[in-house]
Order: sequence, then C-alpha cells, then structure tokens
Amino acid sequence: MRDGARPIAPLDLTLYYVTAAAERTPRGLLKTVEDALAGGVTLVQYRGAHACRRIAFDEALALRRFLARRGIPLLVNDHIDLALAIEADGAHIGQNDLPVAVARKLLGPRRHLGLTINNTAHLEQARAGGELALVDYLGIGPVFPTQTKANPAPTVGLNRLRELVGKSPLPVVAIGGITDATAASVRATGVSGIAVVSAISAAPDVTAAARALRATPPPPVTTG
Amino acid sequence: MRDGARPIAPLDLTLYYVTAAAERTPRGLLKTVEDALAGGVTLVQYRGAHACRRIAFDEALALRRFLARRGIPLLVNDHIDLALAIEADGAHIGQNDLPVAVARKLLGPRRHLGLTINNTAHLEQARAGGELALVDYLGIGPVFPTQTKANPAPTVGLNRLRELVGKSPLPVVAIGGITDATAASVRATGVSGIAVVSAISAAPDVTAAARALRATPPPPVTTG
Repeated sequence: MRDGARPIAPLDLTLYYVTAAAERTPRGLLKTVEDALAGGVTLVQYRGAHACRRIAFDEALALRRFLARRGIPLLVNDHIDLALAIEADGAHIGQNDLPVAVARKLLGPRRHLGLTINNTAHLEQARAGGELALVDYLGIGPVFPTQTKANPAPTVGLNRLRELVGKSPLPVVAIGGITDATAASVRATGVSGIAVVSAISAAPDVTAAARALRATPPPPVTTG
Repeated sequence: MRDGARPIAPLDLTLYYVTAAAERTPRGLLKTVEDALAGGVTLVQYRGAHACRRIAFDEALALRRFLARRGIPLLVNDHIDLALAIEADGAHIGQNDLPVAVARKLLGPRRHLGLTINNTAHLEQARAGGELALVDYLGIGPVFPTQTKANPAPTVGLNRLRELVGKSPLPVVAIGGITDATAASVRATGVSGIAVVSAISAAPDVTAAARALRATPPPPVTTG
C-alpha cells in the first residue's frame, strides 16, 4: 500500500486520458477506458471528484486493476491518499492542492507526480521553490477554452504554450479544450503529449476519437 | 511526515470540538479554538471541507501547531493525506470514506482513528468486518437533528444511543445537535464524550459555551 514492491508503469505522455466525473457517460468508466486504450491512449488519470469518497475509491481501484493488467499507468488527481490507497502509479496536483514537497513526501520517491501550471509565473515559482526537481512532468493549460472545469484559469494559447515548453526542463503535457482538429498544432509546440477529457469521453466513437488524437499528423511545413 | 517520532497526543473524548467550515465565524478559526480550549475542550477535529485544498492545508497546519503546543490532539476529518501532511494525531472517517482498513494502513498504527456509525447495522458490519479492531473510538450520531450537515443520516435519539453504547466495545463520542440543554442527558447514556460544532462555534461566548458543555451536571436521579 505504501511505496511497495509493485512495479510502477513507466510514464508515456503521448495521449493522456483524464476521466472527469462530469464527463462520464452511461457506457461506463471502464468501457470508455477500454475503448480509449484501443485507440492508443498511453496514460490515464482518475479525476475523482465524486462527492462520495467510497465510490471514488471503488471506481479508482477497479480502474487500477484494469489498467495494471494492460501495463498502462494510472495517476490520481489531487487526492494523494486515494493514490496510495489503490497503489496508483502516481498522482497529479494543481496550484491549489497540497504543496508539491508534501505531496512528494507522501507519495514516496518512486511514483510519478505531475504538476499543473497555468503561466510563466507558476513555472518560475516552481523553479525557485525547488518543486521542478520533485515532479516528473508539467501539465500546462488550459490551452483552449474548456467546459470541463467550473472555474478554469485563463487560456494559455499556442504561442505561450510554445514559450513555456521552451522554458520547461521537464516533459510537458498540454491540456484544455484540445480536439482532433487542434491536436496537430498543439503537438507542434514541442509538447511530449496531449491530455483530453471530453474529446474522448464525449465522442460517439471513443476508439476512433483516441486514434485520431494519437495519430495527429504533423502540421504542414510552410516553405517560402 | 509519515508515522514518525513525534509523540501522538493521547485521546480524551470528553469535549470534542469539530471545526466545520460552514460554522466559521469572522473571529477566525484559531481564536475560536483558543477560546474553546479555555472552556475545557479536550480534542479538536479539523473538518476541512474547504474547496481549495491548499487553504485547507494551511489552516490545518496552523491549527496543528497551535494545538501541539498545548498538548491537545488534532484529528482530521476524511482526508488521510491531509492528516499525514500536517502530522495530525489522527483522523476521523465516516461510512462513505475510504475503507477503514485502508485508512488505518495509510495512517500507520500509532495515530488515532475514529469511525462514525449511524445505527446498529453499521456497528454490526464494522464488527463483522474486523473494523472495530482498527479504530480507537466510535462517533455515533446524529443524536438530535443538526443543521451542520447538508444530508444528515436519520437521528439516533437518546434511547438508541444508549443501546449502541452498550453494544460498543469501544469508547463512544456522541455528535449531532447537542447543546448545553441536552448535554447532560446525552452523557447519561454512558458515552465517553460529546462532540459539537455550532454549540461552540456559533455561541456568543465560546469559552462559556464550552465550559457549560464540559461541566454538564449528571441528570437528577429519580427515585420511586
């Protein structure tokens, strides 16, 4: 349960699916994840905003078992106790969560830890505070407007995303309003991966949606 | 941060003050707690329902430092990661939280753990599941109607409280709608202590309110 002997699945940020409670469809969490994996999802985050913590535990544990059999890492959003309880591969925290140093200490050295930053000030604060040495990757967003969060931070946009990626010593995953129509331009900023919620969960065909996001062609080279 | 060398303050359930977010007054959390201690509070629970987990961490850490200097134990409601993060003396969980065995494993063997039960079925489930061996005390309630929780369980009442106390192998603290007018009758059921939120936090004179709850006289002996 603590930082035990179970191997931690290696992190691959290429296509990161975040299971937001508000986005859950009648088809069910595991079915959506199964279909998403078939389309090439490389990493899953349980965003367990369920008001009932026992239901969140049951859901996250089922997801952990499902993903462990397939070698796909699972991170838990915000709740370090839940991450430890289900022996997740790590956790992801934001600017309003437990301090990074505290989260890292609770998680132990082996599990993955991601940190969301919304702007250059956050990046510089994290650098100055030594937090960049304690996390494995940065989530940057929202790149575009998003309906998934009630009070999202101001959108970052592609230009500032490229700038932040250039300044980041860590792999970056972009998040927020990314669709198959915009994925190529986001990947062109140099990010290691893209994270989506509704672009997968709300898609009529989850596997096709994931495949399209995964196989994003590089943007056309402009010559002149 | 884990289950370290810091001594865990011994548990005294006599008068248990629960700091509910909704009950916080402009006088401030620490001032209310200070005044409550002057009136005889023996144990404090941080019920950190603050939407911003960083603010909850800061509040709970300030409270932990304040109480540690006075030898008064602090438990954290529901959030085991927060309890570990601030090196609280323990945690308190309910029927909808992480399973008891998981919470105990995360907390380690030394910290206190309390469990809320609302009825005989909960008590028997906890006994059958071996959970009573993993917790230090039971919280039973709501004894009376309460405005503190949005969707409280059905009230227990004094008769069923007495019955549950008789069946419990563990110390019991009663909670839910208890005031200085009813505290004596609650103590007469055999509980080890009473827990209150608004009877302290909403009182015009916090110290006097705590003193009245602490010094509850035994109910009159009826002869006949």
